Formats: sequence, C-alpha cells, structure tokens
Amino acid sequence: MLNKISDKAIIGNNCKIGDFTIIYDDVIIGNNVSIGDNCVIGLPNNLSNDKLFIGDNSTIRSHSVIYKGSKFKSKLETGHHVLIRENTIAGDNLRIGSYSDIEGDCEVGDYTRIHGYVHVGKGSKIGSFVWLYSLVTLTNDPLPPSHIERPVIIEDGVVVSVNATILPGVKLSMGTFIASGIVVNKNTNVGDVIANSQDYIPNLKVKSLIDLETKTQHPWMNHFIDAYPEVCHDRILELGNNIKEKIQNRKNK
Amino acid sequence: MLNKISDKAIIGNNCKIGDFTIIYDDVIIGNNVSIGDNCVIGLPNNLSNDKLFIGDNSTIRSHSVIYKGSKFKSKLETGHHVLIRENTIAGDNLRIGSYSDIEGDCEVGDYTRIHGYVHVGKGSKIGSFVWLYSLVTLTNDPLPPSHIERPVIIEDGVVVSVNATILPGVKLSMGTFIASGIVVNKNTNVGDVIANSQDYIPNLKVKSLIDLETKTQHPWMNHFIDAYPEVCHDRILELGNNIKEKIQNRKNK
Amino acid sequence: MLNKISDKAIIGNNCKIGDFTIIYDDVIIGNNVSIGDNCVIGLPNNLSNDKLFIGDNSTIRSHSVIYKGSKFKSKLETGHHVLIRENTIAGDNLRIGSYSDIEGDCEVGDYTRIHGYVHVGKGSKIGSFVWLYSLVTLTNDPLPPSHIERPVIIEDGVVVSVNATILPGVKLSMGTFIASGIVVNKNTNVGDVIANSQDYIPNLKVKSLIDLETKTQHPWMNHFIDAYPEVCHDRILELGNNIKEKIQNRKNK
Repeated sequence: MLNKISDKAIIGNNCKIGDFTIIYDDVIIGNNVSIGDNCVIGLPNNLSNDKLFIGDNSTIRSHSVIYKGSKFKSKLETGHHVLIRENTIAGDNLRIGSYSDIEGDCEVGDYTRIHGYVHVGKGSKIGSFVWLYSLVTLTNDPLPPSHIERPVIIEDGVVVSVNATILPGVKLSMGTFIASGIVVNKNTNVGDVIANSQDYIPNLKVKSLIDLETKTQHPWMNHFIDAYPEVCHDRILELGNNIKEKIQNRKNK
Repeated sequence: MLNKISDKAIIGNNCKIGDFTIIYDDVIIGNNVSIGDNCVIGLPNNLSNDKLFIGDNSTIRSHSVIYKGSKFKSKLETGHHVLIRENTIAGDNLRIGSYSDIEGDCEVGDYTRIHGYVHVGKGSKIGSFVWLYSLVTLTNDPLPPSHIERPVIIEDGVVVSVNATILPGVKLSMGTFIASGIVVNKNTNVGDVIANSQDYIPNLKVKSLIDLETKTQHPWMNHFIDAYPEVCHDRILELGNNIKEKIQNRKNK
Repeated sequence: MLNKISDKAIIGNNCKIGDFTIIYDDVIIGNNVSIGDNCVIGLPNNLSNDKLFIGDNSTIRSHSVIYKGSKFKSKLETGHHVLIRENTIAGDNLRIGSYSDIEGDCEVGDYTRIHGYVHVGKGSKIGSFVWLYSLVTLTNDPLPPSHIERPVIIEDGVVVSVNATILPGVKLSMGTFIASGIVVNKNTNVGDVIANSQDYIPNLKVKSLIDLETKTQHPWMNHFIDAYPEVCHDRILELGNNIKEKIQNRKNK
C-alpha cells in the first residue's frame, strides 16, 4: 500500500485517495471525493480539537495540506500545493487555486473562487460568489508586528484582480471591483471600482467596466452566470440586480 | 520500492527517478533525465489525450507536478514545487523556477528562463531567450471574470522584472524591458523600457540601461551570452543586433 | 516503513520524522526536532560539500525541502512547502513561512520572522529581529540578467510589509519600516518609514506609526516584546532604545 489512511478516519463511498498521501485520525470525508497524491489531510494542530469535514463530490489536488478543524460543505475543489489551516468554515463549491494559503479562523460563503498564490489572513470573512485572483493578499495586522487583529471583510460578488493587497480592517462592499496591483486602504461602497491606490475616482462604478470589442459589461453576473451550476443561478441574478439597484439608489440621493 | 512508475511509461537510458514519486501511464521520458522526490509526472486530466514528452538531459526537481499532454524538447530544468498543466509546447532548455505555474495551452521558445512564483496564464505565447523574474503574472481575462480570453504575447529576448503584471492581450515586442512592480496595459515597441505604470517615458530604450559602476549595458545579449550553451551563441548575437538595428531604424524615421 | 532515512544521517534524541519524508546522508539533526510528512532534507547539490545542521527543538513542516550545506542554530521553524538552499547560516529561532524560498549563501541573525511567499535572493544578509511579510522579494541583480551580484542588506529590527520589493544593493538600516507594495531603490537611515515608491517623505520616522484606536506605537519593540522568548527580551529592549536614540541624534544635528 502506497498511502497511509488512519483507521479512525471516516471516508464515504466511491472515494479515491492518491499515493503517498496521509489521512490522519480526525477526518470525515463525504462520498465521491477525490484526493490526489502526496497530500496531508487532517493534520493535527494545537489550535483545534475539531474534526476536518470535507463534503461530497470534492476534489483535493496533489501536495495539498489541510489541517484538522475546518469544514467544507460540498464540492470543495483545490489546486495543487494548497494549504488550509484550522477552523475555517466554508459553504458549497469553494475553489482554491494552486499555492494558495487560507490561514485559520476564516469564513467563506458559497461558490467563491480563489486563484493561485492567494494569502487569506487569519480571521478573514469572505462572502459568496467572490473572486480573488492570483497573488491577492488579505492582511490583518494594521501595525505590523503587533497584537492588533483587524481582518478583512469581503461581501458577496466582489472581484479582486491580480496582485492586489487589502489592508487590515478594510471592508469591500457587495460587487466591488479592485484593479490589478492596487493596495486598498479604505472601505468601499456597493459596486465601486478601485483602480488607483493613491487617488480614488469617485462614482466610478462596475457598470463602467466594458470590454469594447465584445461589449461585455460588468457586473459580471450579466455575462458569466453560465460558469456556475444551475442550482445557484437565481442567487446570482438576484445578487446582480441587488448591486445595480443599490448603485442606482445611491446615485439618486 | 519507494516510488511508483507505470509499466506503460517509456523511460530512456540512464534516468534517475526519486522516492515517493509517481509516474503515470502516458509519459515518454528521454535519456539522462533526473526526476526528484515526491513528484507527480504525467497526471491524467480531461483536457488532453496526448502523452507527456520530456526531452533528453532534463532535470525535474522535487514536489513538481506535470500533467500529461505537454512537450519539452530537451534539457527542461525545473525548480521545486513547479506546476505545468496540459498542452504546453516548449523548445530547448526551458528553465522554470520553484513554485511557478504554467497553465494550459502555452507555447514557449528555446532557452527561456522563468524564475519563481511566476504565473503563466492559459494560452500565453512566449518566445526564445525570454526572462520572467519572480512573481511575474501573465493574465488573460480583460474583464475578470468573463469568457473573453486574450492571452499575453512575449517576443524573443524580453525581460520582465520582479512582480510585474502583464495585462490581457498585451504584446511585448522583441527586447522589451519591464521594470519591477509595473502593471503593463499596452503593447510595446522593440527595445522599449517600461519603468512606470502610469506614465510611459517615450523613446526610453534598453540601451539606456547601464550599470554605472561596472559599465555593463543592455541589451543583455552584450554581456550575458556566456550564461548560455555555445550552441545558441550565434542566435543570441543575431537577436541583440536585430534589437539594436530596429531601435535605430525607428529613431531615424 | 514509510519514510527513508539514511544510515549516515545523525539524528538526536526524541525526534519525529514524518511519512514519505527523505533524509539524505549529510545531515545532522539536534534533539527534539519534528520533521513533517513529504519533506526532503539534506538534498545533495553541486554548490556545497558541507553537511546540513538543524539545531535542537526545530520544527520543519510538511513538503519542505532543505539542501545540504546550511546551518540553523536552534528552534528553526518552517511552514509548509518551504525551500532553503545551500550555504545559508542562521541564528536562533528563525521562522520561515509557507512557500518561502531562501536562496543560497544567505546570512540571517537571531529571532527573525519571515512570512509566506518570501523570496530571499542569493547572498542576502539579514539581521536579528527582522520581519519580512508575505510576498516580499529581496533581489540581487541590478541589470537583469547580468553577472553583477549586489545582494540586499537588512539590519536588525527592520519591518518590510507585504508585497514590497527591495532592489539590488539596497541597505535597510536598523528599525526601518517599509509599507506594503513599495519598490525600494535607495538605502534608508535608522528608523525611516518608506511609504511611497516614487517620493520619499523626509523625516518620517517609525515613531509616527500609531494605531489611533489602541494607541499602539512603533518601534514595535515597545508593544510586541511578549511575542518573543524571555531569553531575548533584553536584546529587544536595547534594540528599541538604540533605534529611538539614533533617530533623536539625527534630528538634533
């Protein structure tokens, strides 16, 4: 046998466990779950006494490390070399790209997509239908190093482009769009576009983001709904309408 | 036995395969290839039916993952924890640094060097003698998230410094030099230097890049040819001359 | 047996070695050391003939790779997927976060903390009580690519915030604070704050960094001493006083 699965771990039906993978004691895995090669699942640690739950139909790719004490509802999908620490609670169909690191005590909603090399700082709260692109960092210490902890809050439908840094305590409101390479140091309003670190452009909203060639227009709920399972389409439409309505209400004031 | 090599894989003479490494079925490896420990080679996936070819004299370092469906001509060298997905076609002596990720469907020329934590987006086209330094990201979606795909094109002899982001659809012409931390949002001309995201300096060309202490001067083909195998020296000299000539012609217009 | 430990390696008392981990010949490990799963320890390489020394009470987490030829005094702690190459000499209680890469020939003092995705370029010199946050890159080639090597020098008590890049040859003096996302291209004086790449604010010193809500104030030696073992508290107090005194002396001139 080329892997090592604890007798105490509970593993559902029709699961596939890769070679040179270790599954520790306090692990409960649903049905139809695939775990790649060279993974470490349910790693014991001092910061949690809880078990690790991985929901049905999940895919964990090779060289990933998941601590005990986190819960993933269903259809978790990870890239390779992913690290997820203790006490994170996530909803349905979270995707986490290769080399990303979710630190402890985070909350994540449903259908959120995180690309590669993303660092989600301890205690971050992330909504549903959120996109965090490569190299995005969610910080939490406003005066590093200190004992102050001010995690980032990211509401539903937010998009953070590659290599953006969200500073401690910042709240990104629903549907906010952050451009590439930006350091974000203040809260945003619904549907705001932040395209420059130094000098925010007031009243620039996501509806201004248009691809001229294809006429594709934000918010992305307009044109990207088919990338999600049908079961959540109503929620996405509602979220898109909600964002557009709140932008309009603000403008009318 | 401490690794797992498929009977169906074809492995050349004088190869060395590390411990706890898995080699899947659809793999063809040349002669004198060294594969480190804890690697996953030829990973099956839904996006390719082709085999993985790794050319003669290659070195794959530990914890690397290479999908089936890519082709590397000869002397591929990877760092540790590298990820290469399906359907990438690369020439001779590509080097990819630790933690770098080449997404699917990319093309890469000969003797290109990619340092660590580099993300090469799906469908990118990269020439020969290119340098991509740490944390460089080649994106491909102009309105994230959307279904629009506009991969980056990087011509021969281009240098992209650490932590630069190349936005979707951008073409970096031959010999372009991108400074550290820049977000590049437009095409460049031959030998351009891009040193500031907001405000391009017109007519700043690579010949202006001089180390005052040592008098070393760009384009780098002047002073760095000895870092390459002799077999490609003529090509490097020609490339350097080509860049200088095109800069001159442009100036004369 | 699920790991592979060379007979020639010398391993102290009360050590724990994970599964699917390889320990090569030229390795000397102290007492009470814990090494995680899927690690590669003491990797042979052409650039060092020396052994790898890992001091007492160290913790190496899973998927880490450490080359032969480096020395760590005591209580080295690494995250997961860490890479440390040859000929690095480090003091007591160095911590290196997940996915970080220490290239060859570096020197590091005591009690230095390096977070994740940090790239420490070849030959860097880093003092004691230093903090390097996520995605920090220490470069060393002023005209990439070239044969010129000008490593970065970082003195005691320096803090470099997330995603900052330190350009080649730069020396960060004692107690310097670098803000997030900055590209640093010149030397700093004791206690300087660098908050903008283009336009340094003269005379901005670390004492100006205050969290208004909690009244916490830099230098961090004021408020973060309890995060370190008691044995080094006197050194931290002295370092903090030293920084404050030098800032004052400069101001008086």
